[in-house]
Amino acid sequence: MLTHALIGDKGKTIELGWKDGARTRFHAIWLRDNALDDKTRSASNGQRLITILDIPADTTIDAATIKGDMLELTFVPEGKTVSFPSAWLSANAYDRDTAGQAGWTGKDTVRWTKATMQHSVPRAGYVAASRDCAVLGQWLAAVKTYGFAVMDDLPAESGALCKVSDLFGYIRETNYGRWFEVRAEVNPTNLAYTNLGLQAHTDNPYRDPVPTLQILSCIENTVEGGESSVVDGFAVAAALQAENPEGFRLLSSYAARFEYAGSSGVRLQSKRPMIELGPDGELLCIRFNNRSLAPTVDVPFDAMGKYYAAYRRFAELIEDPAFEVTFKLEAGQAFIVDNTRVMHARKAFSGTGKRWLQGCYADKDGLLSTLAAIEHQFKEAAE
Amino acid sequence: MLTHALIGDKGKTIELGWKDGARTRFHAIWLRDNALDDKTRSASNGQRLITILDIPADTTIDAATIKGDMLELTFVPEGKTVSFPSAWLSANAYDRDTAGQAGWTGKDTVRWTKATMQHSVPRAGYVAASRDCAVLGQWLAAVKTYGFAVMDDLPAESGALCKVSDLFGYIRETNYGRWFEVRAEVNPTNLAYTNLGLQAHTDNPYRDPVPTLQILSCIENTVEGGESSVVDGFAVAAALQAENPEGFRLLSSYAARFEYAGSSGVRLQSKRPMIELGPDGELLCIRFNNRSLAPTVDVPFDAMGKYYAAYRRFAELIEDPAFEVTFKLEAGQAFIVDNTRVMHARKAFSGTGKRWLQGCYADKDGLLSTLAAIEHQFKEAAE
Repeated sequence: MLTHALIGDKGKTIELGWKDGARTRFHAIWLRDNALDDKTRSASNGQRLITILDIPADTTIDAATIKGDMLELTFVPEGKTVSFPSAWLSANAYDRDTAGQAGWTGKDTVRWTKATMQHSVPRAGYVAASRDCAVLGQWLAAVKTYGFAVMDDLPAESGALCKVSDLFGYIRETNYGRWFEVRAEVNPTNLAYTNLGLQAHTDNPYRDPVPTLQILSCIENTVEGGESSVVDGFAVAAALQAENPEGFRLLSSYAARFEYAGSSGVRLQSKRPMIELGPDGELLCIRFNNRSLAPTVDVPFDAMGKYYAAYRRFAELIEDPAFEVTFKLEAGQAFIVDNTRVMHARKAFSGTGKRWLQGCYADKDGLLSTLAAIEHQFKEAAE
Repeated sequence: MLTHALIGDKGKTIELGWKDGARTRFHAIWLRDNALDDKTRSASNGQRLITILDIPADTTIDAATIKGDMLELTFVPEGKTVSFPSAWLSANAYDRDTAGQAGWTGKDTVRWTKATMQHSVPRAGYVAASRDCAVLGQWLAAVKTYGFAVMDDLPAESGALCKVSDLFGYIRETNYGRWFEVRAEVNPTNLAYTNLGLQAHTDNPYRDPVPTLQILSCIENTVEGGESSVVDGFAVAAALQAENPEGFRLLSSYAARFEYAGSSGVRLQSKRPMIELGPDGELLCIRFNNRSLAPTVDVPFDAMGKYYAAYRRFAELIEDPAFEVTFKLEAGQAFIVDNTRVMHARKAFSGTGKRWLQGCYADKDGLLSTLAAIEHQFKEAAE
């Protein structure tokens, strides 16, 4: 609830007072640009109809009136009056201390270890998720929060993994196809197509943009070994930062290079850091893959020794069983990982039996959009 | 040509001397990790077979011998001897000054303006590009260098744009479909589907990862107006930086937010800066779209006034005709833009006639991979 609105700086800013005593300031130009009226924003699709150049540079607030839950402002020289809901102003306030420590993440990200996750792996049945928005929403929310989830009750047949991506978004087709077979081959174009164990890794760091989601589904898995495991890269990065802040700084301050040229006609290359931060220090993406790491040429000579030591320590932590959650995929099961955060690994396998998985890539924008739409729908229904 | 190899720091580093007098140093651990032998790298697909943890932390170089064009090194405690081609060592040397000014780009990026580009728009015919690797390679190289190119001689029919993406990679399917119609509609879910002019913009900044390529093809265009234009965002960013370094710093140091919720079941949101730099200051991505810019809440109050002034100046420069290259797409033509760099716009249109375009998204990893494979093939043929 607004208690006062005080125009300042000759109308260039306004200070709003709230019932709880808080004060938040806004700029006139920001408010005008974000006006919610139907001349500024399309009533049908919400898009902004004007550009910043349609707004006079000398825009100021000439009058401010609190009317119940609305703040009514008049902007000059346009002479335009617009109302803002107080809840909207509160939700979009920027007059606050935003500085965070490098590597921070938002409240929707919950880091985990074996101790906190092994016995509470998020999962849903496919049939339930495909029929019930609430089940699907919870499953998608788990992917957002923890970076992975298991799906049960899929048909144990080729292509079933597409049913999972169809629940929320779109497959990212690549040179590996819309989906690809993961089983031991005679002349593998990728070490994934062998019976070797694979160190925990993110997929395709040599691709830019990197696929932000991966789905692995199981059609048959009767071998000895071949368990899957997942590691929360954000938890490991935080552990590295806690014990070795300089190592964390090095891995996030210098780009690594990745490459893949294992198939004819394919020469993929990228240049991105192992630990990617946003400009405000937010932890955005982990890239870790021993198989495709190319020579590191963007670290100065004087920093390379410490950089490699940090890379080693990061790898040691990634292999620490305390971070590893393990499960064996059975026929008709799949799991999804946020490939910008959660690493996956597999144990070596051998002996009789067969291990046939299929993999595909997808992107988080579709998943988070579907989740937001479901949450919005439930919120509207509740109101 | 190598002239000397001098082991230093008790074997932890080595200094190589070159015929031209240059000296480059390497670390033992770096060399060992990047060894090219078939126990370290798969001979069939080039992937690394070992992890950093398979290499002793106390690895040093015990012996170094120049043998013609090869450098032979023995690593202890493994007692492993590996040879490196001198050309490989030279190409991957990291003992150099790598610091660049914020906003730098590599030599493969050539910025352009109307003056340098209007009369030399890169283009190729579809039939020639689909039959001749050299034609395709030149066209793809233009996209890499300039961030856009035109393709002629396509069938003027629905879906023809997929022929373009098929030349180099894969379509990124989204909520708009594998491709989408761009024509005036009665109840548009997006302002693109009207006859309004559109300010130069990058597409879908509300998507993360953003689609890195966009293709627009023309099936019919007989209206008054409706010209297309492209603007080199990297050139504009450099112009902003030259006249207003602080404004450039603000737009690259704080995240903007973008959103789209124009269709049922879709609520896309992202948080990324308008000018994205890598950790080493490399200019990576421009995001600019007045229609989908959400309230900016990640800029502190004290910086918001200057941030908005920088945003306005960036917009003014983007609209400066000196940066704008204009052409009218005819039936059977398409153009591709690097959506991380080149903005596109269209003029308003009206009157009789019909304007029917189709658009789709794709990704740069596939395009650059195909280009690299073509270049590699020509290089091998020449050798």
